[in-house]
Amino acid sequence: MAKTRTAAAKTSGGKMTYYFSKNKTEGRGLSKQLLGGKGANLAEMTSIGLPVPPGFTITTECCDAYYKSGKKLPAGLMEAVRKNIAMLEKELGKKFGDDASPLLVSVRSGAALSMPGMLNTILNLGLNDVSTAGLAKATNNPRFAYDAYRRLINMFGDVVMDVGHEHYEHAFSAIKRKYGVKLDTDVPAEGLIELCNDYKEVYKKRTGKAFPQDPMVQLEAAVEAVFKSWMGDKAVKFRDVENIRGLLGTAVNVQSMVYGNMGDDSGTGVAFTRDPNTGENKFYGDFLINAQGEDVVAGIRTPQVVSEMPKWNKKVYNQLLEIKDTLESHFREMQDIEFTIEKGTLYMLQTRTGKRAGGASVKIACDMVKEKLIDEKKAVLRIPAGDLSQILLPSLDIDALESARESGKLLTKGVNASPGGVVGKLAFTAKEAVERAAAGEKIILCRKETSPEDVDGMHSAVGILTSTGGATSHAAVVARGWGRCCVVGAGEMQIDEHARRVVIKGTTLGHNDLVTINGTTGEVFNGALATRDAKLSGDFGTVMKWADKYRTMNIRTNADSPEDAQRAREFGAEGIGLCRTEHMFFGEARIAAMREMILADDLTARKKALAKLLPFQRADFQGIFTAMKGLPVTIRLLDPPLHEFLPHEAKAKEELANTLGVTLEVVKQRVSDLHESNPMLGHRGCRLSVTYPEILEMQVRAIIEAAIACKKEKIDARPEIMIPIVSTSPELKLLVALTAQTIEAVKKELKYTGKLDVQIGTMIEIPRAALTADKIAEHAEFFSFGTNDLTQMTFGFSRDDVNGFLPDYLRKELLPCDPFQSLDTSGVGQLVQMGVQKGRSTRKDLKVGICGEHGGDPASIDFCHKVGLNYVSCSPFRVPIARLAAAQAALRDEKKGKK
Amino acid sequence: MAKTRTAAAKTSGGKMTYYFSKNKTEGRGLSKQLLGGKGANLAEMTSIGLPVPPGFTITTECCDAYYKSGKKLPAGLMEAVRKNIAMLEKELGKKFGDDASPLLVSVRSGAALSMPGMLNTILNLGLNDVSTAGLAKATNNPRFAYDAYRRLINMFGDVVMDVGHEHYEHAFSAIKRKYGVKLDTDVPAEGLIELCNDYKEVYKKRTGKAFPQDPMVQLEAAVEAVFKSWMGDKAVKFRDVENIRGLLGTAVNVQSMVYGNMGDDSGTGVAFTRDPNTGENKFYGDFLINAQGEDVVAGIRTPQVVSEMPKWNKKVYNQLLEIKDTLESHFREMQDIEFTIEKGTLYMLQTRTGKRAGGASVKIACDMVKEKLIDEKKAVLRIPAGDLSQILLPSLDIDALESARESGKLLTKGVNASPGGVVGKLAFTAKEAVERAAAGEKIILCRKETSPEDVDGMHSAVGILTSTGGATSHAAVVARGWGRCCVVGAGEMQIDEHARRVVIKGTTLGHNDLVTINGTTGEVFNGALATRDAKLSGDFGTVMKWADKYRTMNIRTNADSPEDAQRAREFGAEGIGLCRTEHMFFGEARIAAMREMILADDLTARKKALAKLLPFQRADFQGIFTAMKGLPVTIRLLDPPLHEFLPHEAKAKEELANTLGVTLEVVKQRVSDLHESNPMLGHRGCRLSVTYPEILEMQVRAIIEAAIACKKEKIDARPEIMIPIVSTSPELKLLVALTAQTIEAVKKELKYTGKLDVQIGTMIEIPRAALTADKIAEHAEFFSFGTNDLTQMTFGFSRDDVNGFLPDYLRKELLPCDPFQSLDTSGVGQLVQMGVQKGRSTRKDLKVGICGEHGGDPASIDFCHKVGLNYVSCSPFRVPIARLAAAQAALRDEKKGKK
Repeated sequence: MAKTRTAAAKTSGGKMTYYFSKNKTEGRGLSKQLLGGKGANLAEMTSIGLPVPPGFTITTECCDAYYKSGKKLPAGLMEAVRKNIAMLEKELGKKFGDDASPLLVSVRSGAALSMPGMLNTILNLGLNDVSTAGLAKATNNPRFAYDAYRRLINMFGDVVMDVGHEHYEHAFSAIKRKYGVKLDTDVPAEGLIELCNDYKEVYKKRTGKAFPQDPMVQLEAAVEAVFKSWMGDKAVKFRDVENIRGLLGTAVNVQSMVYGNMGDDSGTGVAFTRDPNTGENKFYGDFLINAQGEDVVAGIRTPQVVSEMPKWNKKVYNQLLEIKDTLESHFREMQDIEFTIEKGTLYMLQTRTGKRAGGASVKIACDMVKEKLIDEKKAVLRIPAGDLSQILLPSLDIDALESARESGKLLTKGVNASPGGVVGKLAFTAKEAVERAAAGEKIILCRKETSPEDVDGMHSAVGILTSTGGATSHAAVVARGWGRCCVVGAGEMQIDEHARRVVIKGTTLGHNDLVTINGTTGEVFNGALATRDAKLSGDFGTVMKWADKYRTMNIRTNADSPEDAQRAREFGAEGIGLCRTEHMFFGEARIAAMREMILADDLTARKKALAKLLPFQRADFQGIFTAMKGLPVTIRLLDPPLHEFLPHEAKAKEELANTLGVTLEVVKQRVSDLHESNPMLGHRGCRLSVTYPEILEMQVRAIIEAAIACKKEKIDARPEIMIPIVSTSPELKLLVALTAQTIEAVKKELKYTGKLDVQIGTMIEIPRAALTADKIAEHAEFFSFGTNDLTQMTFGFSRDDVNGFLPDYLRKELLPCDPFQSLDTSGVGQLVQMGVQKGRSTRKDLKVGICGEHGGDPASIDFCHKVGLNYVSCSPFRVPIARLAAAQAALRDEKKGKK
Repeated sequence: MAKTRTAAAKTSGGKMTYYFSKNKTEGRGLSKQLLGGKGANLAEMTSIGLPVPPGFTITTECCDAYYKSGKKLPAGLMEAVRKNIAMLEKELGKKFGDDASPLLVSVRSGAALSMPGMLNTILNLGLNDVSTAGLAKATNNPRFAYDAYRRLINMFGDVVMDVGHEHYEHAFSAIKRKYGVKLDTDVPAEGLIELCNDYKEVYKKRTGKAFPQDPMVQLEAAVEAVFKSWMGDKAVKFRDVENIRGLLGTAVNVQSMVYGNMGDDSGTGVAFTRDPNTGENKFYGDFLINAQGEDVVAGIRTPQVVSEMPKWNKKVYNQLLEIKDTLESHFREMQDIEFTIEKGTLYMLQTRTGKRAGGASVKIACDMVKEKLIDEKKAVLRIPAGDLSQILLPSLDIDALESARESGKLLTKGVNASPGGVVGKLAFTAKEAVERAAAGEKIILCRKETSPEDVDGMHSAVGILTSTGGATSHAAVVARGWGRCCVVGAGEMQIDEHARRVVIKGTTLGHNDLVTINGTTGEVFNGALATRDAKLSGDFGTVMKWADKYRTMNIRTNADSPEDAQRAREFGAEGIGLCRTEHMFFGEARIAAMREMILADDLTARKKALAKLLPFQRADFQGIFTAMKGLPVTIRLLDPPLHEFLPHEAKAKEELANTLGVTLEVVKQRVSDLHESNPMLGHRGCRLSVTYPEILEMQVRAIIEAAIACKKEKIDARPEIMIPIVSTSPELKLLVALTAQTIEAVKKELKYTGKLDVQIGTMIEIPRAALTADKIAEHAEFFSFGTNDLTQMTFGFSRDDVNGFLPDYLRKELLPCDPFQSLDTSGVGQLVQMGVQKGRSTRKDLKVGICGEHGGDPASIDFCHKVGLNYVSCSPFRVPIARLAAAQAALRDEKKGKK
């Protein structure tokens, strides 16, 4: 689902900045669209009395205006900024560039949706030669002041002037050598003063200009740099990958600085009000003593967990616990917060709804119901249905886990960043991960730390493993968002990217070695451990019960084998909505008979080959009916064109010729005869049954024989026969008649006189079928929308070729999302709606479902509910998601009705 | 257009037979659907007092019932037949099987639409050993009686019992040898008596039963044989080729026999009330003295033309002229009649609307207006618009013709059966014609005579040439119907089918020799004569003037070159509705630059290659604007996927690599990268412009530069830029903006400040575009329905692959016609209608046209008129057809309004 937002509901009326402080909060209740997530919540926190350093937010509209005017700051913006700075100066009793009590600010981005690490930030802004000396005096801490200044020069140079971090490295190394120290923190104040001068030299050399001494000049440049980062490559790519569209731009938050690095009574941290992995109601996070916030997020130093904090500062810890409760009862949601302690005083820098693992969503929602923070319906509505996939992912087998631990396979333990258990081979660069994954390998991406440049590789991998960083580092946050198994901060790993190996306590693992990671515990194992399927119980079961209570649509599954059918049934599927029969023809004995059928010269030979396929099909169906006993099983008759079953390589053709006792020429000729320019629009589906009715007859015979065999064993088989690729009512009429005749013939042959409830219906997947659904419904007992094909034909997009241009379409926002993932409600959806209405105008009680991939997509399920489908059908794994999404759709509908 | 009829408007209420005679005519005014064309017109002729031998018609409903009941004659039918026979016996004073005055009847098929030679006929029914002797006595002509009897045995055996004609040949030869005669007609009566016995032996030997002596048994078997012939292979095939669908079946006409072979005062003939080739108002036809009607139709003997008849029997000739006038003033249409003279008495056996060549349609309609038989509107409505193609076909150049005649290239002269002049190589079998035509050769099918088995070959050929048969023979009738150039009865040809050669007065021509035939004169020339385009004038001009007076839609043309544009303009095109630009890239220098563009690594290289294409495109457009000055020219931007321009053979790839100075691998890789599974749904049309905006920019630049160059030469260029394959409104918005920017940029560069009226619009060819036409119209100044692609995607039919199943669909009547030839109004048409309505709901004055192949199809044009299109666009050659069809649509609309 695309995270699309429409333009700000509440507009600013041209107001460009919103001030926030305990004395005056302008932005309370305004949207994230306008102020960004960070800005809106800073205003919110300030207004409920939390200790937030005062500042102001520049709206996202200004960013939009900046781009619309060809990258010019909107007129009047800097004037408004100056006024806000004046207010800040007055409130704090500080002055920009002052030699005694200088005002220092941070300049941070903040879009409506979180884009961690993607947009620019500048800290310590306001420092110059004069004010740094002033700060040194005021804090009586020249080391701190000049460290802040050198950080500003570095950061400003990097962010505003594109003078990368690496250019300053040399100067820093030289200073450390000069003072004979190894750690940054050991450089004395005078060394840092020297360093600031060196940094200014680097800056001047690289940019041709002196580092700006006027804080307002610094501020203007910083604001523009934040705006610019909105369209930076990595930000654009992130929005692409995350499918974030329709935002105006980023807001800019200018906030008075507080420092977590003013000594050992200072610190900084990030935390969640509940455990984002498990959902447990306990304060969860990391903090670093004497550090700036960026240090935690970047994962450069490995932080302490917050539960350790009381040992350091119990008062602050208790204050944080109180704030946590205040925030939860205000937002009635789990929060993700950032805070800084400056010389013992706590400041809140950010709060936002916390990202969480799928299981945690469920637990938090259930707990909050118990805690009476929210009601059942709100709980159902709150759990992102798609996130459930995370708790449906395989985890490691407990016994295998135990024995692996005992037998010494445990290599090391890191931070359990994102749950689940996966097995894969190691890749040491993102590029390698992408390439090898594309070639079919299961890859665990193993990095010291990850950065936005790595997102492609992370996405390609089945799991992510890093040697630094905490539970809120880039790798952890991104992986959790995707439900990708992830272990971070496994500090015992020594990674050699170039040699493509990692050494863990003496064990060397190369790129071909299998490794198992346990995202739930943080363990890393040598070799492949057994994995097990997700097990649904407890809170998950509660949520599913609630969902089943509120949803009005049935949920079926797409399954082609008894195993899949069984699994889906366990996940709550109420029938099979799509059982494809073509996969059944690819077994060794089957494909031979299939090919014999395709190569047959005449009806007799074709029937002979089909007779060989019949017992296989019958057994397939019997297995599926048994697994689904008592529930409907919709079987789609043969769908793909015949050439899909023929071999395409020379050798395979020769073998086929030998097997069938025909010349190679015959095989080649038939392959060439059957070749199609556009097979998607070719001789397939019911068109095959029109030309070769005997194929349909064989399939229907197999279905009915299987159903009768089940019935004789007291198994309640409920087949529904579905005719695919129908485009005209006469073709359906013809084939329904043939199907009905065959059913009767088989019943007669088998002398079966009992009840046998077989429905005959059709896929609606050709635009014309939807357009003429009133006629089609004359011959169909049910419709099932095949929205994969319907999307292909409605858009004229070949699913197999769409990647040639779809990425451009998404990037240029010509499409809100990939229409194969989420149903295009305005185009394809019109045909679905038309199909339902016209179909039911002919046959009031027409049963209508959907069996395209969209049947497991929450946004599409919402649409299906709206247009009145009876059921959605999706892959077994997505059945719980569909159950929840269907309930959410019903509840949203209810809410709407109330308005 | 499908010749489809809905079920009989007036049903029989269960009545199965309709009697006709001067005393009692039951079927007057009943439909052809019920009585068949022959039956309805026999009733009609009888009722207006023409001399028709009495008889009765069995309805088409009986044929339908016969098939619906599993090939059983409907209950009660034979009872009704017996009653009618009794009436006939009473009226004629004859008796079935009588030994003195036997009743003899013909049993003929007759469907609602003419299917010449496709259905069965039996003559002389009622003869047996007894009645033949009786007939011999009654007529005092045993020779005649036994000749009739042997014909019956032969025909009955052939038609009813499947004992082919060839089985009787041997017996006939033996008799001729025995009596020492060469001609059939020289066998004396006693020989014929012997022959009848021999024939009965053959019949018995082949069928195991004696030839039935009971006339009612004969009749029942004959009726059933006629019904059976309805579904015979050749009849089914004929309906397939002729696109005849929706008929109930054939009627059966049982009519008392009259004989044209009762001596030299007897004869038989077929004629048209006007010349069906030229339309001239003169009696036109053939007759044979002392012959049965079948002899004329089969073309076995070459008949005399009717203008010779007064020499033989002036009274009968004058009576025929009178009847001709009666028929024309009754039917107000040119008639095609069959008649027989029995011993000096004229009998009318059939009348029907006469088929005619396109030019004749026009002349007859114009003449009938002058004669005040019909009015202008009726004249416009009457000319089958599609038939105009016949007068738009090339004919032979007059000078070339003169000099060919003078230089002795004239080989021989036959009957001018269907007008036009063509050049081709000779094929001597239908199969050969099909194969060679498929391989791209222009073929003239050269046969002794043609039969229904030959229709495929005839259809494949550019012309048809036979050595026997007259203007109403199979070859002539079929060829005329198709507008295929045809010369028949060129008796000087000696055809050797096996040696694949023909000898004409000493000149031997083989299968590789070029021959020219002149269907307008009947001449056959050695070698290739120059052909010339059709010239429109006289009556044709009158009809076009009338058409232009009544039509409300504009007619444009699809043309990609100045030559085509010019020709279409001469045909009356009021602009170009579709100028495809892709064909322009296939010239030698162009394709190289095109390929360079496709292989370019980056934008710079691509732009460099595009710059090479620019001057070509500009020149193309300038030429077309000049040819179309003052009229709109709709230019479609690049449509096909890029891979269509790349070479696919190894050698061509190598050459390309050399030309471009890249490795073969690079070329191979690019060809492989660009390969698509379903190119029809791939990266094409505006999708190319989204990914490579520079291609659009180049094309728009070329258009605008060309337009400005024209303007500077005072040529009124009116470009309309059309963006293809649009499926979403945002993509059109983006590309329209880019187009508009480019237009402005070029105007600015060229410092052009004059008027330049450029419209920007889109093709509606993707279902989604029609579904969201209200949004699309926000950005389009015009719509043009691309119904080729729209049909592909609405049906899910690939135009390139549809022949794998479409013939089955047509045969099984799952589709009324090929939806690529005639617009599917109920499915695709819904989208067209929706597109028009939604488009105009956003933009009231939206100009809407159609530029698919359907734009030249009369039935589709009618639909376009109904849904309110502003114009249709079709190939130059079809422009006059479209003008006429548009007028007919408007007139039908007017008539409807009056009701």
